[in-house]
Amino acid sequence: MTKVAVVGANGYSGEELCAILARHPHVQIAAVTSRQHAGKAVGEILPRLAGWPSVSGLTFSDSSLETILQCGAEFIFLALPHGLAREFAAPLVEAGRKIIDLSADFRLRDAEIYKEFYGEDHGAGHLLAEAVYGIPELHRAEIAGARLVASAGCYPTSILLPLVPLLKAGLIQGSTIIASSASGVSGAGRKAETSLLYAECNESLRAYGLPKHRHLSEIEQELSLAAGEKVAITFVPHLAPMNRGIHSTIFASPEEGVTRKDVEACWKEAYDNEPFVRLTAALPDVKNVNGTNFCDIAVREDDRTGRLIILSAEDNLVKGAAGQAVQNFNLMAGLPETAALL
Amino acid sequence: MTKVAVVGANGYSGEELCAILARHPHVQIAAVTSRQHAGKAVGEILPRLAGWPSVSGLTFSDSSLETILQCGAEFIFLALPHGLAREFAAPLVEAGRKIIDLSADFRLRDAEIYKEFYGEDHGAGHLLAEAVYGIPELHRAEIAGARLVASAGCYPTSILLPLVPLLKAGLIQGSTIIASSASGVSGAGRKAETSLLYAECNESLRAYGLPKHRHLSEIEQELSLAAGEKVAITFVPHLAPMNRGIHSTIFASPEEGVTRKDVEACWKEAYDNEPFVRLTAALPDVKNVNGTNFCDIAVREDDRTGRLIILSAEDNLVKGAAGQAVQNFNLMAGLPETAALL
Amino acid sequence: MTKVAVVGANGYSGEELCAILARHPHVQIAAVTSRQHAGKAVGEILPRLAGWPSVSGLTFSDSSLETILQCGAEFIFLALPHGLAREFAAPLVEAGRKIIDLSADFRLRDAEIYKEFYGEDHGAGHLLAEAVYGIPELHRAEIAGARLVASAGCYPTSILLPLVPLLKAGLIQGSTIIASSASGVSGAGRKAETSLLYAECNESLRAYGLPKHRHLSEIEQELSLAAGEKVAITFVPHLAPMNRGIHSTIFASPEEGVTRKDVEACWKEAYDNEPFVRLTAALPDVKNVNGTNFCDIAVREDDRTGRLIILSAEDNLVKGAAGQAVQNFNLMAGLPETAALL
Amino acid sequence: MTKVAVVGANGYSGEELCAILARHPHVQIAAVTSRQHAGKAVGEILPRLAGWPSVSGLTFSDSSLETILQCGAEFIFLALPHGLAREFAAPLVEAGRKIIDLSADFRLRDAEIYKEFYGEDHGAGHLLAEAVYGIPELHRAEIAGARLVASAGCYPTSILLPLVPLLKAGLIQGSTIIASSASGVSGAGRKAETSLLYAECNESLRAYGLPKHRHLSEIEQELSLAAGEKVAITFVPHLAPMNRGIHSTIFASPEEGVTRKDVEACWKEAYDNEPFVRLTAALPDVKNVNGTNFCDIAVREDDRTGRLIILSAEDNLVKGAAGQAVQNFNLMAGLPETAALL
Repeated sequence: MTKVAVVGANGYSGEELCAILARHPHVQIAAVTSRQHAGKAVGEILPRLAGWPSVSGLTFSDSSLETILQCGAEFIFLALPHGLAREFAAPLVEAGRKIIDLSADFRLRDAEIYKEFYGEDHGAGHLLAEAVYGIPELHRAEIAGARLVASAGCYPTSILLPLVPLLKAGLIQGSTIIASSASGVSGAGRKAETSLLYAECNESLRAYGLPKHRHLSEIEQELSLAAGEKVAITFVPHLAPMNRGIHSTIFASPEEGVTRKDVEACWKEAYDNEPFVRLTAALPDVKNVNGTNFCDIAVREDDRTGRLIILSAEDNLVKGAAGQAVQNFNLMAGLPETAALL
Repeated sequence: MTKVAVVGANGYSGEELCAILARHPHVQIAAVTSRQHAGKAVGEILPRLAGWPSVSGLTFSDSSLETILQCGAEFIFLALPHGLAREFAAPLVEAGRKIIDLSADFRLRDAEIYKEFYGEDHGAGHLLAEAVYGIPELHRAEIAGARLVASAGCYPTSILLPLVPLLKAGLIQGSTIIASSASGVSGAGRKAETSLLYAECNESLRAYGLPKHRHLSEIEQELSLAAGEKVAITFVPHLAPMNRGIHSTIFASPEEGVTRKDVEACWKEAYDNEPFVRLTAALPDVKNVNGTNFCDIAVREDDRTGRLIILSAEDNLVKGAAGQAVQNFNLMAGLPETAALL
Repeated sequence: MTKVAVVGANGYSGEELCAILARHPHVQIAAVTSRQHAGKAVGEILPRLAGWPSVSGLTFSDSSLETILQCGAEFIFLALPHGLAREFAAPLVEAGRKIIDLSADFRLRDAEIYKEFYGEDHGAGHLLAEAVYGIPELHRAEIAGARLVASAGCYPTSILLPLVPLLKAGLIQGSTIIASSASGVSGAGRKAETSLLYAECNESLRAYGLPKHRHLSEIEQELSLAAGEKVAITFVPHLAPMNRGIHSTIFASPEEGVTRKDVEACWKEAYDNEPFVRLTAALPDVKNVNGTNFCDIAVREDDRTGRLIILSAEDNLVKGAAGQAVQNFNLMAGLPETAALL
Repeated sequence: MTKVAVVGANGYSGEELCAILARHPHVQIAAVTSRQHAGKAVGEILPRLAGWPSVSGLTFSDSSLETILQCGAEFIFLALPHGLAREFAAPLVEAGRKIIDLSADFRLRDAEIYKEFYGEDHGAGHLLAEAVYGIPELHRAEIAGARLVASAGCYPTSILLPLVPLLKAGLIQGSTIIASSASGVSGAGRKAETSLLYAECNESLRAYGLPKHRHLSEIEQELSLAAGEKVAITFVPHLAPMNRGIHSTIFASPEEGVTRKDVEACWKEAYDNEPFVRLTAALPDVKNVNGTNFCDIAVREDDRTGRLIILSAEDNLVKGAAGQAVQNFNLMAGLPETAALL
C-alpha cells in the first residue's frame, strides 16, 4: 500500500479526490488536511464520504508542513487554491516527497506568463523548470519520473486532448482555433459567492472571464509546444446549469486537403490504446462522462465553410481534476494507470 | 378589441402565446384549436392557463379551416409544425385573414433553399414572395403592412439582432462568422422522445444537428441581405439543461480598424429606441431575459487574436417565438408594439 | 397613479415585487431603496429589470427614513429581513404611510410567540394588535382598511389556503394535521452561504429547520383562529432543486363521515369567486403556478387509512411573497384586486 | 470469476447494473440482452458504458431463453418490466440458474395482493413462496440461500430500512405511519412519455400515484411482518426535478415513553455493522448518497405534537435498484457483500 496525503480536502476537487482514493486498491490515506476543519471527522464535514472504510475514520489534520511531513505519506496531493499550493510544494519536494498539484501553480513553464495571467509574482519559479504538465496522454514518460506534476486544468484537458495530436500532425491551422466551452458550476469551487447561488445559476447560461481566462495560458503553452510555433486562440468559457461536466466546441480550419477522416485517423493512432480517451460515433455529451475519467471526442465537417467542428466532453472534477491527478499519481507510483479509475 | 385565433395551441410556443394573449389589453381570443384536444377546456389540458379570465373559459376547437374562418378572428396565429402551417396559410390569406406564422414555412424567400434544408417541396411557394420575415427590429415597416408574417426562429433572432446592423455598417467580415448557441429544452418542442426525457437532458450538455441545422437557412438569408452579398457561417446549436433561454456566442473578425467601441456605437444607433433590445454592460445571461421579450446583447474584444466576441441572450419561447409573434401582430394590427409585452 | 416605494429591493422578493409593480397600470414607483446599492441604477444591479419603462430609469435610494418619507409615496413595501422591518414600520405608520410588510415582523399577534420562534424581543409590539395578517382570501375586509399589513409567508399561504375553510367548517381534526412542504431555493433568499450554492442544491433534496421552523408560528396562529381552538401541527419543510415554487402535501383525518366531496364542496363555496385559488382536477404542480399569483389546491382520500391527502402549489415569490403583497396593496389602495396580477 | 447475465440492460436500472458489474472484481459478464438492441454493441447504445474493459466489447444478445441459458451464466439479473420478468424467472430457476429480479414480480408473498395492486393475475405464483424479499439488511440469511431473490423497490427500501427495526422493537405505533417520499425522474424509467420530458419535470414538483401506489403493497407486507400484525400506512410519492435520489420523510407516533434516543439506539444496534446504512448527525440529503449504495437515516422529535419525524435518503438506481441487486448477488454467490459497491 502506498501512503498518500491530501492537502486541502474540503473543496470540490479535494472531496472528489478523497472519494476516488477511498476505493483505490493500492493506497492508504495517511492524512487529509483542512485549515478550516482540523480536528473534525472527515465523514462529518463531507457526509458523502462517511462510511467508506479507508477515509471515514480519518480526522482532518491541520495543514502545517510538519503535519504533512510526519504523516508518513510519500505522495502528496495539493488541492489548494493557486498561490497557496506553491508555498507547500517547494519544502515538500526538498524533503523528498512527490507532489501532485491540482492547482495552476506549476502548469506554466514561464514565470512571466504566470504573472501576466495570475497577476502576481510566482515566488517558486525555480520549480517551474522541473514540473511536468500533468496530462498522461501527452506527457506520460515525464510524469512517471517526475517529483512534481502539475495536474492539468479542466478546460485545458478538454481542449488539449483533441487538438494536440492534430497540431503535431500538422492537420489544422493553429491561428484559426476558437474554443467555446461550458462548465458545470462545481468548476467555480465551493465558494460562498452570490453569483454561484443555486437561484443565480439554475435556468441561467452565461459566458464569463472574457477575453482572457487564466486557463488560456496553459492551453496556449501546450498547443504551441505541439505545433512547434506560437499558437494564440480565442477561448470563451460559459457557466451552465449542471453540477459537473465540461463540454468544448472547437472550431478550426484544416490544412489544405485535410478531411474529417484524416482527423479521426490521427486520433485513432494517438489514442487507440489510451484507456481514457474515447472517439465517439455520436456527439459527446457530458452525461456520458460524468463520474468517470473519460474524455470523449468527435469531429464533424462544415462543408459549407470548410471548417472542422471538434467536440469534447469530460467530468471537470474527474478527468478535469481529481481523476487525472490519480492517473498521474498511478504513473508516478508505478501502479496500474487505471487503478481506482476503471 | 381585436379578435384573434391560435391554431395549434398545445405545444410550448402555442401555450406561451395563449399566456401572453390572455393578458393582452386589446385582444379577444376567438378560438384556440387543437386537433388532439378538440372539445376539451383549455384550462384542463393546459392547467397553467386555468383561471385566466380571457382564456380559461375557452374550449379547444378542432383545427379545420371552417372553424377557423367562422370564429370571427381577423388575425390568425399558426403555432403548427413546419409543413402543416403552409396548408393553412394559403386559404386563410385568400379569405382575407392576416397570418402570423410561428413555423419555418414562410421564412425563406427561395423555395429551393426550403427544399434543401427541409427535405421536401414547399407547396405554397407563391406566398414566399409576399411573406415578411418577422423580426420587427429589422423589418418593421413591411411587417406593419403584411398579410403574412413569418415570425422568426429562436436561434436566428439571437444571432441576427446583434449581427445585422454590423454587417449593414460593414464593421465585420461575413466570412469569419461562427455562432455557438445553446438552447433550453423547450426549444425541442413537446414531443414524446426518449432523447428529451428529463433524465437524458439534466446534467447533460451536447451539440446536435451538425453541421446543417435548419435554422441556418434563414440566418444566412438575412445576414446576406444585410451584407449585400452571400454570407455563409458556421453554426453549432447545443442543448442545455434548462427549460427556457437561448444564449449565443458569436465570433467574427472586424474589418480593419474596427473596435468594440464601433460595434457598440453601431448598436446604440440601431437599437437605442428599440424597446426589446438591451445593450448590457455585464455579459448577457438567459436568466435576465427568461419570461420577457428582451434580447440582451454585448461585445468583447479578444486583443490577442483580433476577434470580436459577440454575446446574446433571449427567451426562446418569448422573443424567440410567442412574444415576437405578438410583437409582429401588434404592428400588423396597429396596436402599441409593446402591448402585453412590457 | 398611486405612488409607492420599495424598501430593500435587491433580495429575491424585492426584485420580484419591482417586476410586478413595473407592469402595474395604476402605480408609480417613487423610490426603491437599497443600503448596499444606493446611488446605482436599478437596471444595473438587477439586470432583469433593465428596460422596463417604469423601473429601469430609477436609481437606488439609500434606505433612510428621511428618504422614504420624502419620496412622496403613500404606500411603502418593506422587503427587508425580519427584525429590520419593524424598525421602519413604526415611524412610517406614525407619519401616515400605509405599510405592506413582506417580512415576518408583524404576522404574529403575540409578542411572546415572536420571541419564542425568532429568539429576540419584538421591540415594536404595540403595532402587533393593529397589524392585519395579509392573506386576502382570509382577511380581505380588514386588509382593505389597514395601515399595516403583514403579508403572509410562503409556506403558510400554501398550508392555510386549503386548511382554513376546512377547520372553520369543522371538516377535519386539527390535532391530526401534518404538513410536508418543499420549496425552491429562492425561498432561502439571496444570501452568500455555502449551503445554498448551486452545486450543493442541485441533485439534492433535504429537510431542514426541524422540528420548529419559524413559519410554524403563523401557521398555527391562523389555524387556531379558524378552528376556534388551539391547533398544533407537525410541519417539515424541504429544499428542492428548483428556483421557485412551493408544494405542500398535507395529511389530516376528517371528522366522522366527512369525505373528499365534502372537502371539495367546502372549497368551492369558499373560493369559487376568488381569482387566485384554483381547485384543480389533476394534482397540483409548481410548474403550473410559477410566475403567477395562483395557489392550486386538490384533495384525495386514502380509503385504506381514512386520511385525507391535501395538496397545494404556489410560486413562493409571487403568491408566497411579492404577488400577495401587491394583492394586499391593491385592496388597501382601492384598486382592482387583480391589477398587475392577472 | 462468476459468470452473470443481465436481461433487459437498456433501462436506467439495467444500465446502472452494467456500470456496477463492469467494475466488479469477481464477475464476468457473459451476456447482456435487449430485445430492442440485439446485435448492437453495448457501448454504442449505452455510450456511458463504452471503454469499460469488461462490458464495452459486449454485443447485446436477443432476450430469448435459449440465449440466456447458453451463455454460461450461473446468475441472471432480470431488469425487466413487471409482468415480463416472471415469464423468464420460472424456466430459468427450473434450469438451475439463480435469479436476482429487479422487478416487482416476486416481491409479494400473496398472489391476491399482486392482483389487487398490479391489476392482473400473477401467473407464476408457485414461485412466490420461495422467492426472498431482497433487502440484505432485513433478510440476509434467506438471501444467501435463495434461488430467486426479488430485489426490493426504491421507495420501499427507503421506508423499510428505518422503520422495520422500530416496529420489531415495538417503538412506534404502526397505525400512525405516514410516508411522504420524493424521487428523481429516473425512477419513472426510460419511457418516451410527454409527462417525463425535461421541460415538464424541471422547475416542477408534484405528487402522483395517489392514493395507492404499487410499492405500497410491498411496504406494508414487510412492515406487517416486522410488527407481527397488519400495518396499513399512508404513502405519497412525489416527482422531484433531479435525475437520481429518493428522500423519504416519515411521520409516526412513538409508543408511550419512547424518545429519539431510543430510536437511535435501536438503529445503532440494528445497523452498526451494516456497511450500507448510515445514521447521520445532519439531516439526510440525496446528494450525499447519489452514486453510492448507502441509505442514510436520521430522526427528530416534534415535542409539540409528540410525533417522530424519520428521514432517509438513497440513490433510487443504486440502493434502490442496481446496487441492492449486486449486494444480493454477492450474498448469493458467496462473495464479499460490498464487492463493487465500496
